[in-house]
Amino acid sequence: MRHLKGKAVVAQGGGPTAVINQSLVGVVMEARKWPFITNVYGARFGVRGILKKDFLDLTLATTHNLEMVAATPSSALGSTRDKPDEEYCARMVAVFQKHGVRYFFYIGGNDSAETCLIMDEYAQQVGYDLRVIHIPKTIDNDLLVTDHCPGFGSAARFVTSAFACLDMDNYAIPGVFIGVVMGRNTGWLTASSVMARRDPKDGPHLIYVPERVFDTDRFLDDVENVFSQNGRCVVALSEGIVSSDGMPMLAKFQPETELDPFGNMQLSGRGTLGDALSDQIKQRLKIKRVRCDTFGYLQRSFLGITSEVDISEARDVGETAVHFASSHDQNGSVAIRRTGDYSVDYFLTPLETVARDTKPLPPEYLKGSHDIAESFRYYARPLIGTIPHFDRIIAPPVVF
Amino acid sequence: MRHLKGKAVVAQGGGPTAVINQSLVGVVMEARKWPFITNVYGARFGVRGILKKDFLDLTLATTHNLEMVAATPSSALGSTRDKPDEEYCARMVAVFQKHGVRYFFYIGGNDSAETCLIMDEYAQQVGYDLRVIHIPKTIDNDLLVTDHCPGFGSAARFVTSAFACLDMDNYAIPGVFIGVVMGRNTGWLTASSVMARRDPKDGPHLIYVPERVFDTDRFLDDVENVFSQNGRCVVALSEGIVSSDGMPMLAKFQPETELDPFGNMQLSGRGTLGDALSDQIKQRLKIKRVRCDTFGYLQRSFLGITSEVDISEARDVGETAVHFASSHDQNGSVAIRRTGDYSVDYFLTPLETVARDTKPLPPEYLKGSHDIAESFRYYARPLIGTIPHFDRIIAPPVVF
Repeated sequence: MRHLKGKAVVAQGGGPTAVINQSLVGVVMEARKWPFITNVYGARFGVRGILKKDFLDLTLATTHNLEMVAATPSSALGSTRDKPDEEYCARMVAVFQKHGVRYFFYIGGNDSAETCLIMDEYAQQVGYDLRVIHIPKTIDNDLLVTDHCPGFGSAARFVTSAFACLDMDNYAIPGVFIGVVMGRNTGWLTASSVMARRDPKDGPHLIYVPERVFDTDRFLDDVENVFSQNGRCVVALSEGIVSSDGMPMLAKFQPETELDPFGNMQLSGRGTLGDALSDQIKQRLKIKRVRCDTFGYLQRSFLGITSEVDISEARDVGETAVHFASSHDQNGSVAIRRTGDYSVDYFLTPLETVARDTKPLPPEYLKGSHDIAESFRYYARPLIGTIPHFDRIIAPPVVF
Repeated sequence: MRHLKGKAVVAQGGGPTAVINQSLVGVVMEARKWPFITNVYGARFGVRGILKKDFLDLTLATTHNLEMVAATPSSALGSTRDKPDEEYCARMVAVFQKHGVRYFFYIGGNDSAETCLIMDEYAQQVGYDLRVIHIPKTIDNDLLVTDHCPGFGSAARFVTSAFACLDMDNYAIPGVFIGVVMGRNTGWLTASSVMARRDPKDGPHLIYVPERVFDTDRFLDDVENVFSQNGRCVVALSEGIVSSDGMPMLAKFQPETELDPFGNMQLSGRGTLGDALSDQIKQRLKIKRVRCDTFGYLQRSFLGITSEVDISEARDVGETAVHFASSHDQNGSVAIRRTGDYSVDYFLTPLETVARDTKPLPPEYLKGSHDIAESFRYYARPLIGTIPHFDRIIAPPVVF
């Protein structure tokens, strides 16, 4: 087997996660083992660091420092929202050619996979032998092909724990509570709000995801029904919920919303959607105590809230990526296949199968118009891990 | 020594905390040991449960169930925002008289201490021998006399961890980030945002607490200065910040704000304040990426985020309360005295020394107009405990 000799570059794209640095360190540790990979460079601030030739020489990082970094949430190299077009990618490949970079590992979501795809195609076109591997990462869990995405389990663990407490908080001081969860196109993270429910009366009582059309009138009816039955109501809601015309609900409440370079609307980092829905409940249902928390950036990489499986798999996809590139001389996107309850293996899928589209919650994970099916719990349980025990008082009422 | 024979009632008031059930279980466990305390009743939903005679007989709860409840965040008995006046308190004492309740333990903040005070005075007035003990609890850490309040350490641990991550998130994808932290009158919790800072460039770079007048123009200048120096800026801000006329900033942005039964403005559970300040930054400083998370209810009782010292002390104040009432035959509020680094003891302070007023951050814990002094870190460190390790990459830049 031939061994392509040259440097490796690793970069992190898109939003941080709690375990993205495990993948980074997996790449670095494994790449440093191969003599024909001469250096491992970390591109600072994602693909932008490649264009600017802004690299850290990770060949010289100590193993102990790397292990500490692996356990650190957020993107240690820095990230970017740049979405490279063909020209941008051509310039990156030119940098690689000039400096003898033969391996590129890009940790990110489907936009990062698309960047990999364009670079791969361009390198082939100009006849430059370049290994390009996309390493999956997204709290949204919306990549195609793979069973699930590193980063999701830990974020879902945050959301699960959060709703366990918020439901108890809402029980202690009743009212309506809305928790707005990240998720532009898909409801995977919002669905995980149900994972700590044990009793039929436990919240969240209503779950709204982008896979279902959101109708404000029906939403208000739902809240009124739950509230009149239980005297309280906990709602979990994706920030990306859309109305029947396909427009994000946020755009209805805030028409002048900021767009990012991908043409996506800014959903996180403000409370508009939840506040608007709270106001509707107060005004139209005359319920007095209505509270809303928009989880925002807390949920995606919280220090101390990680899932063991997620940590382990995030490391694995980084290490495996290097093996696919070096031992197997292949390009593609690393994917996870579930082989048992619970075990996985890793395989390489063509970049074009992951780039561009996202994977919605399948219909079998949805239940009615505003609930999540048991099958989702079976799917998500090992990814989230066991959350700390909590319990209610078991004692008889006093009869006078 | 005489032993007053009768029943005990325990109740939880105000907002939940991560460790309030430790105090509850401390009371129940300890009270069940004394033969002259014939039953231990838990009032459901705070003082309201006393009026409605809505009690659980905790004498009959199993020890194992109680230990599970102790480890559970939020208020297991339920809580209330009722603020009893003299008539309300008189009716509660009448319930106690009728059913032979001789011990009342109320876990809460200064409003709960005031309720205890009114009940104590009324019971003396009508000649009913009643032990009334207030057990301190508040994430705000704003009770007088005591060195600190159970519930604060765990909430502060959440805020510390949150800002550690949010600062790394902001480093990874630069811009301005504002984190809005609970704290109506005092900035103790917001101050704890600095606890994970290690390097001078670490955020939060700007901290605004209710103890300092907030001026929007100066705030914008501060943000502009930090942003132009660092290319990014992380802000920690108390929800209760006030302008020079003494009015909460939130009221400026949202004049129709809801009032609670205490006449307090609803500060948590919506994103208005942070969103308004974000808009000012975008509009007036022309900074594009401005994000704000209002931490809301997540921070006060998050499953899995607790401080060891806080857990231990919350149990202690509950157990000690029973001893003060039973062995020492005294009424008052349990307080914590710091005796070393780190050790504490517990004492009883008269109810009137804790009721009504709150304790602001002392001037020596504040630094300039928008920072927190080192002395605060020394004070808060043992209460928060050690947070998980995190680190940056240590590797040289590549020079071409």
